[in-house]
Amino acid sequence: MPAVVSLSDHKYFIIRILVQCLRNDSDYCPWFCVHKMVPSSSKALIHRSFGQPENVIEISETPLEQGLSANEVLVRFLASPVNPADVIRIKGVYAIKPPLPAIGGNDGVAEIIKCGPDVKQLKVGDWVIPSLPGFGTWRTYAVGKEDDFDRIDKQLDMMTAAQLSVNPCTAYRMLEDFVDLKPGDSLIQNGANSAVGVYVIQLAKLWKINTINVVRDRENLSELVEELKQYGADYVVTEDDLSRNELMDQIWKQVPKPKLALDCIGGKNASDCLRHLDFRGTMIIYGSMTKQPLTIPASSLIYNDQKFKGYWMTRWRHENQHSPEKSSMLEFLSKAFKDGKLKSAKTIPVNLSDYKQAFEKIANGKNEGKIVFVMNE
Amino acid sequence: MPAVVSLSDHKYFIIRILVQCLRNDSDYCPWFCVHKMVPSSSKALIHRSFGQPENVIEISETPLEQGLSANEVLVRFLASPVNPADVIRIKGVYAIKPPLPAIGGNDGVAEIIKCGPDVKQLKVGDWVIPSLPGFGTWRTYAVGKEDDFDRIDKQLDMMTAAQLSVNPCTAYRMLEDFVDLKPGDSLIQNGANSAVGVYVIQLAKLWKINTINVVRDRENLSELVEELKQYGADYVVTEDDLSRNELMDQIWKQVPKPKLALDCIGGKNASDCLRHLDFRGTMIIYGSMTKQPLTIPASSLIYNDQKFKGYWMTRWRHENQHSPEKSSMLEFLSKAFKDGKLKSAKTIPVNLSDYKQAFEKIANGKNEGKIVFVMNE
Repeated sequence: MPAVVSLSDHKYFIIRILVQCLRNDSDYCPWFCVHKMVPSSSKALIHRSFGQPENVIEISETPLEQGLSANEVLVRFLASPVNPADVIRIKGVYAIKPPLPAIGGNDGVAEIIKCGPDVKQLKVGDWVIPSLPGFGTWRTYAVGKEDDFDRIDKQLDMMTAAQLSVNPCTAYRMLEDFVDLKPGDSLIQNGANSAVGVYVIQLAKLWKINTINVVRDRENLSELVEELKQYGADYVVTEDDLSRNELMDQIWKQVPKPKLALDCIGGKNASDCLRHLDFRGTMIIYGSMTKQPLTIPASSLIYNDQKFKGYWMTRWRHENQHSPEKSSMLEFLSKAFKDGKLKSAKTIPVNLSDYKQAFEKIANGKNEGKIVFVMNE
Repeated sequence: MPAVVSLSDHKYFIIRILVQCLRNDSDYCPWFCVHKMVPSSSKALIHRSFGQPENVIEISETPLEQGLSANEVLVRFLASPVNPADVIRIKGVYAIKPPLPAIGGNDGVAEIIKCGPDVKQLKVGDWVIPSLPGFGTWRTYAVGKEDDFDRIDKQLDMMTAAQLSVNPCTAYRMLEDFVDLKPGDSLIQNGANSAVGVYVIQLAKLWKINTINVVRDRENLSELVEELKQYGADYVVTEDDLSRNELMDQIWKQVPKPKLALDCIGGKNASDCLRHLDFRGTMIIYGSMTKQPLTIPASSLIYNDQKFKGYWMTRWRHENQHSPEKSSMLEFLSKAFKDGKLKSAKTIPVNLSDYKQAFEKIANGKNEGKIVFVMNE
């Protein structure tokens, strides 16, 4: 018979406490254990109807369930940005209408505060991001299944981590999944100064792909051009420049015509970009700022063999909740951010309770950077 | 030393003649050999400028080269149809403008009359079709390289063989190359009574794919519906029917929404077809009768994940001159025609010399079937 370790009741009790402390299971943890405070309630930005965020969003405090199921975790949100899609969702004009009342926010970083006994992959103190869209990230605390989160690198800057799951991932997938781009190839994108656009510029630079970046003409154009060039933009042109053949031909003398076009504007501007797409090029539509449809001449499809596809990060996330492609993407992006090869767009931290002014700024187009709610409790 | 067969000069001469007779090399063939007559000239329908065929096409007779290079063949055309693309090419509005003067016709069947000494795959009497577009098939004789032709089954009906390389192949490739259609799936196509459309109906029927066929409303609609149903059409609807939700919903209760849409019309009708395309469906644009561009809402691309591609048979033929895909396609189609599983569209045989009336009929839309030039000499 193998030796059986026999412990007195007293010793067994001590070991049990130690094991549970190591597992950070606070229900059994004695008072002297240093533990994350488990709060009694959570604050959240919710809306009970669809409309302009500045009109319909309110702050609500709800009691937090104190017990966790075996595979659940309690998280404390650290920072959660406001993305344009969040606003569209609150307005009720997004493809997916959440059931009401709904908590806003899809992107954000949280810290694990407490784990249920069957939680395997996460531990207290880990940083996580929601693994699916629609989690509702504008809140202080949340309980979710282990499966609802992806662990991310804690060495990331918090504001970068808060924005990881939507914009950099959208840029990454659009460069990765449609056209086999090689160093020296080109891409053209409109809305180049959007959050996604800026990541497209940086990732393309990293991968030695030339970018032709289309922006709207504006008063401070030269500043914007300079800013995008700082990110690594090879060419920045205005929407009107696309029709100036001499100017554009100068570019095509220096770099090949784009194999990939990224469109988040639609309408005339998309058509103008299309005119510069290479034979057999692909145009990816991932937004429609003008809400105008795409107009494609048959010759583009038949004779130029150009293809048109859509990209929707929300669907990709649903279909790749725990895919290897997602893990390698998050790993790549985190490393690039940590190495300083990727920079997140300018952010404006806002206390969750100051939401009203934040949404008013967004509605008036007066925010000079991405608004990120920071949870200070 | 191995034995060497020694022949007297006389015996050697006889053997040489016999070998050359077997090779059908008429230059050395004595008078008693039964051989195809080698003509001294060829008649062709040519145009020296671009314009309406009835105005610019003329018949021209040119002397035929009597000697053949080692890898050349002399062919006699038997029958060559007039396809819509031929007319567009003559008008000078096609993507490819031939150098002038040009011989019309891209489709047609010919018989091998004489082979150069290095010709390996073809022999006198074989039936062939041009392996590339733009050969100029509206003529009585032609000299080409062996490589310029594909041998086809001589047991095919001549009028079917004459039309083999364009329309049935276009239908075949569009069903084969874009969407993995399985028995029970559906497709929707506009211009369903076009030459290509009728082959789409028949091939889909063979492969147990449901077809929803869109045609323009007309006086004799019920006749057309009956005709298309004879070919195997599952549903025939008018362009206006596409907006009658109740009617269309009846169809979608019986068969799944189409994974594939084939568009040769463009404009509003293409958009109306698109509204019925399944989630993640693909629309293939292979023509543009209305010359109107395609208008695609961003939601179709982003949320419905629908794809838009073009198909151009001319390019496929250039890229697949001797591909295995082409061989297996021609084999499949020939067998299907011989077995009576595919029927070619109604044809009207016209003598090459009667070209003027033929083109006038086409211009006036008064041809009640596909005009096929028949070379009777």
